[in-house]
Order: sequence, then C-alpha cells, then structure tokens
Amino acid sequence: MKHTISVLVENHFGVLARIASLFSARGYNIDSLCVGETENPEVSRMTVVVRGDDSVIDQIIKQLNKVADTIEVSDLTRHRFVERELVLIKVQASGEARSEALEIAGVFRATTVDISAETITFELTGSESKVEAFIDMMRAFSVQELVRTGEIAMNRAARTSQP
Amino acid sequence: MKHTISVLVENHFGVLARIASLFSARGYNIDSLCVGETENPEVSRMTVVVRGDDSVIDQIIKQLNKVADTIEVSDLTRHRFVERELVLIKVQASGEARSEALEIAGVFRATTVDISAETITFELTGSESKVEAFIDMMRAFSVQELVRTGEIAMNRAARTSQP
Repeated sequence: MKHTISVLVENHFGVLARIASLFSARGYNIDSLCVGETENPEVSRMTVVVRGDDSVIDQIIKQLNKVADTIEVSDLTRHRFVERELVLIKVQASGEARSEALEIAGVFRATTVDISAETITFELTGSESKVEAFIDMMRAFSVQELVRTGEIAMNRAARTSQP
Repeated sequence: MKHTISVLVENHFGVLARIASLFSARGYNIDSLCVGETENPEVSRMTVVVRGDDSVIDQIIKQLNKVADTIEVSDLTRHRFVERELVLIKVQASGEARSEALEIAGVFRATTVDISAETITFELTGSESKVEAFIDMMRAFSVQELVRTGEIAMNRAARTSQP
C-alpha cells in the first residue's frame, strides 16, 4: 500500500542525504520525495511517498525518528488528509491536435504555460489520480517532456472530506 | 545566484541517496529538491534548486554527470524556462479574518482545499516569487502549517516569455 510520510526536519547541512541513505540502506523504495521550506526558515518539510505494508512503514517511521535532525514524523495516510501534486507536461500538438489538447486541458482545468507552433506545455495541480488521468489523456499526443513534483500533503482540519 | 538544475536519472535503487550525498559531501546546500516519475517508468526526474556562482554550478554539473545512473543534466537557469511550485498553507481564520483570507486568496487565484470553523487550507501554484508573496500575505493570519513542493521547471519552446 502507498503511504505518504511527512517529516519535519531541522534545516541542517546533509539532512537530506542522511534520510535518503536511510531509505536506500534498508531497501525501501521511494515513489517520490519533495523537500522544501516551511514557515520557519530553520525547518524543512519532506514529503515521501513509499510503498509497503503497515509493519514496514512502522519500521521506517521508527528509523526516521532516530535521525538527530528529525523534529516530527507522521504517516498522513492514517488520517484524513489533502494530497496534491503538480505536473508540467509538454506535448507535440499543432492544428486540430492542438484544439483537442486544449479541450482536454480545459476539462481538467489545466493551465497553458507555454505554446509554440509545434508544442504546448500545460500545468496541472491535483490529486495523484487526477494527475495520472490527465497524463493518460495526453499520451494521445506525443509527450515531449514531463516533470512531476511528487505529492505533498497535509492533515485535514474539517470533518468532511470536501470543503 | 539561484540555479535550477534538472537531472534525468535511471530509476535505480539508491540513486536519490547517491545524488543527495554528492551534494552534501561537497558542501553544496540545496534550497529544494523534487524527485518524481516521468513519462517513462524507468526514468525519474530530479529538480534541484541550489545557490552558487557559475564555477560552483559547473562543478556540480560535472559531478552529477559522473553518477552512473545519470542520463542528462541541465542548468535550466541558463535557458528560458517555466518554473512552478505548489504550496499548501493552513491558516487560523474565522469570522472577519476568514473573509479577508478568502479575499487575498482570490487575488492570487489560490484554491480552498479544506475549511473548518477555525482554519482554512489553501493551495497555490505559481512561480517562486508569487508563492512567496502569497505566503507573506498569509502571515497576517496565524500560519498553522505550510508545505512546499520546491520548484519544478521546463525549457520554454516559445520565443516569447508569455503564452
């Protein structure tokens, strides 16, 4: 099962390398990883998507908690959470194909960020399943380049899953 | 100067750890890093934002090219490129403060992804400067949680910088 683990770390030198080695040394395979700043410049947040059953994930959390720079580790998958991912995708499309690509992008509420005679680049934000559905639709055109951030996530405060 | 480096790597086990150690062993400090899938399941793309003058960046690129799993390294900052980042931000806001937060979010075209009696969570996609301006405005409310993906980027195909 896919787990989304959020790790708050002190922004110390080499902390990413320490955490990445922890995963690879123990044979855990990472689907995606993002590390970025938080509201506090001394603290970074890593969001790691990893596959494994509950006992494997418990092991990972235990190991992450042992890293000196770790402030907090949580497995968001065990709570109600919001997950979002960002993708940039450049496809080959001119003429009719362009109209069709723009139409599909409209359905997904993707934004056009670049356009040339031969190509269009779209930006899309959404859950992993939405992003994958969009990428699948774009395969009808020739995908020239694709960059995904990987997932970031946050606990929900609300009781319902929809605002 | 800030450089956005894009690294295409074979999706081999431990490649993230090898690249992260390369940065830390040489004392290069990473601002943000994203690693996610591409259109080819055997290939991942890392986007690394790192600070340094041109000679430092040239060294980094040389080192990255030496990693066995590296397919391609490019310093996008040397070309015209599209850069985007995604942020989730949860602020404390009810009553009048809520209206004010929603108003600001509207200006930035941020989306509300979660709302409770006491808090609102917004999602925003944009360039680093847009994301930072939004975060600055949100500091007027009490920021409870903030997650950023870090930057992803792609070369522009178009001759002009605006579609």
